[in-house]
Amino acid sequence: MEEFKRIWEEYRKTVEEALNRFLPPEDDYPQNLYKAMRYAVFSGGKRLRPVLTLATAEALGQDPKALLPQAVAIELIHTFTLVHDDLPDIDNDDFRRGKPTLHRVFGNAIAILAGDALFAYAFRVATEGPLPAETKLQILREINDALSYKGVIEGQVADIESLQRDPTYEDMLFIHTHKTGKLIEASVVVGALGSHASSEKVASLREYGRNVGLAFQIMDDILDAVGDEKEVGKRLRKDFNRASAVRILGLERAKEEMDRLVREAVASVKESLGIRGEFLVAMAHFIKSRTY
Amino acid sequence: MEEFKRIWEEYRKTVEEALNRFLPPEDDYPQNLYKAMRYAVFSGGKRLRPVLTLATAEALGQDPKALLPQAVAIELIHTFTLVHDDLPDIDNDDFRRGKPTLHRVFGNAIAILAGDALFAYAFRVATEGPLPAETKLQILREINDALSYKGVIEGQVADIESLQRDPTYEDMLFIHTHKTGKLIEASVVVGALGSHASSEKVASLREYGRNVGLAFQIMDDILDAVGDEKEVGKRLRKDFNRASAVRILGLERAKEEMDRLVREAVASVKESLGIRGEFLVAMAHFIKSRTY
Repeated sequence: MEEFKRIWEEYRKTVEEALNRFLPPEDDYPQNLYKAMRYAVFSGGKRLRPVLTLATAEALGQDPKALLPQAVAIELIHTFTLVHDDLPDIDNDDFRRGKPTLHRVFGNAIAILAGDALFAYAFRVATEGPLPAETKLQILREINDALSYKGVIEGQVADIESLQRDPTYEDMLFIHTHKTGKLIEASVVVGALGSHASSEKVASLREYGRNVGLAFQIMDDILDAVGDEKEVGKRLRKDFNRASAVRILGLERAKEEMDRLVREAVASVKESLGIRGEFLVAMAHFIKSRTY
Repeated sequence: MEEFKRIWEEYRKTVEEALNRFLPPEDDYPQNLYKAMRYAVFSGGKRLRPVLTLATAEALGQDPKALLPQAVAIELIHTFTLVHDDLPDIDNDDFRRGKPTLHRVFGNAIAILAGDALFAYAFRVATEGPLPAETKLQILREINDALSYKGVIEGQVADIESLQRDPTYEDMLFIHTHKTGKLIEASVVVGALGSHASSEKVASLREYGRNVGLAFQIMDDILDAVGDEKEVGKRLRKDFNRASAVRILGLERAKEEMDRLVREAVASVKESLGIRGEFLVAMAHFIKSRTY
């Protein structure tokens, strides 16, 4: 566990430095936009997604630095989705990671546009680095497919629409696998594509990513129900009116479901990577034990 | 003029069909999102940008069909910027092309997310088609640079910020060349890149696109001041509190400035394309004579 945390921290630092290098300087015009972009990006995230990308690449024998632009792109896209989801017109959240959300500090207009700019910027960054052009295009398609059609954005729409009715298990599954799962799955797959992995390995790592993504969101629902607000850094006990796994399955069955997903994720990664997949195995275990 | 209109109409039809083919079907789940995307895209636009891309390619001896996905991507991105700009938190516009704006019909949340989905979708589409991978990446970079950093989004932010002060000629120039000009410039450049044009030709066509883009926005300001609301299809006489060329230069000087830009655009295209550039020359002349 100590070694796992140390390696994560190394990856995380690499990601932070790259984010800082790739984003526009905040003293450039229009400063408000660039300040807002940096405010959203540097708010103490775990960098789960880019760390998954880099760790997958390294487990496959690729130099993780070769995928740094693509890993950064995924984190920028993740940040963009958070900024838009927090808007008053969507989830109306005032706090994230213990800090006021972007629109609370910079206003709604800048929040919408800074989100858009992070998105545009992400695709710019994803075209960079040493990977072959064909691989970069494959990665761009993977990231885009994770967003829409049938991706994160569809998950967010389904989430909003489910507020109008009593959500079913199927609603919850669609929302969780799309809104949260798709980009986590893509983070792993991008690591595999950028390492020129065989299509069998890509498929089995996709399985891992999908299961880890769904487990991550179920843990989010569990934390919402029983977590500590200070430790989690956002308002909790607010998802009982949503398609929360705890609401639909109850706390015990939600935990069982999460355990099952983590076991399956671990099985896929052991099958495809053997002992080289140790960090990814630890990542799956972390997800079910996290308290923030 | 008749022939010019006929050729434009042919290009426009090609673009409409491709847009219809590339967008998700609207009977798919979540229907509201796909209906909203199609509502925004099929609202009777002139398709100026993709037509510029296809016409530039054809003038350079390239089969315009080879660039259709990239031309469609530019139109989807243009539509996304309109959807977000019209939002109550930004420009708060109720009508566009004679129809209620997207958020008026589908609500703000769906408007924000449909804009995001059009954006994601655009980049997906831009990776398709027969062009070499390296060329597609060049095109993706060009489109992204047109958006941010120092692109359309920066122009929109500068536009909002200029409402707080008395805008200068420099403010107007920054806003117009970025908010409107950048994507029109990119439309032409993408046509040139997708035709493997020499860097001299790309540079001279970029000049053309830049001048045409700025002239187009000045004409927008002129139409806002003296145009016919029914013909233009949106609320007019509303830009006097903005960085309008008519407000800053007066109507006569704004017209002179537009004429000068069109002359320069025509000179660049004649220099680089000779008589093959006839359609692009007619396009530049259209821009200063349009009434809608």
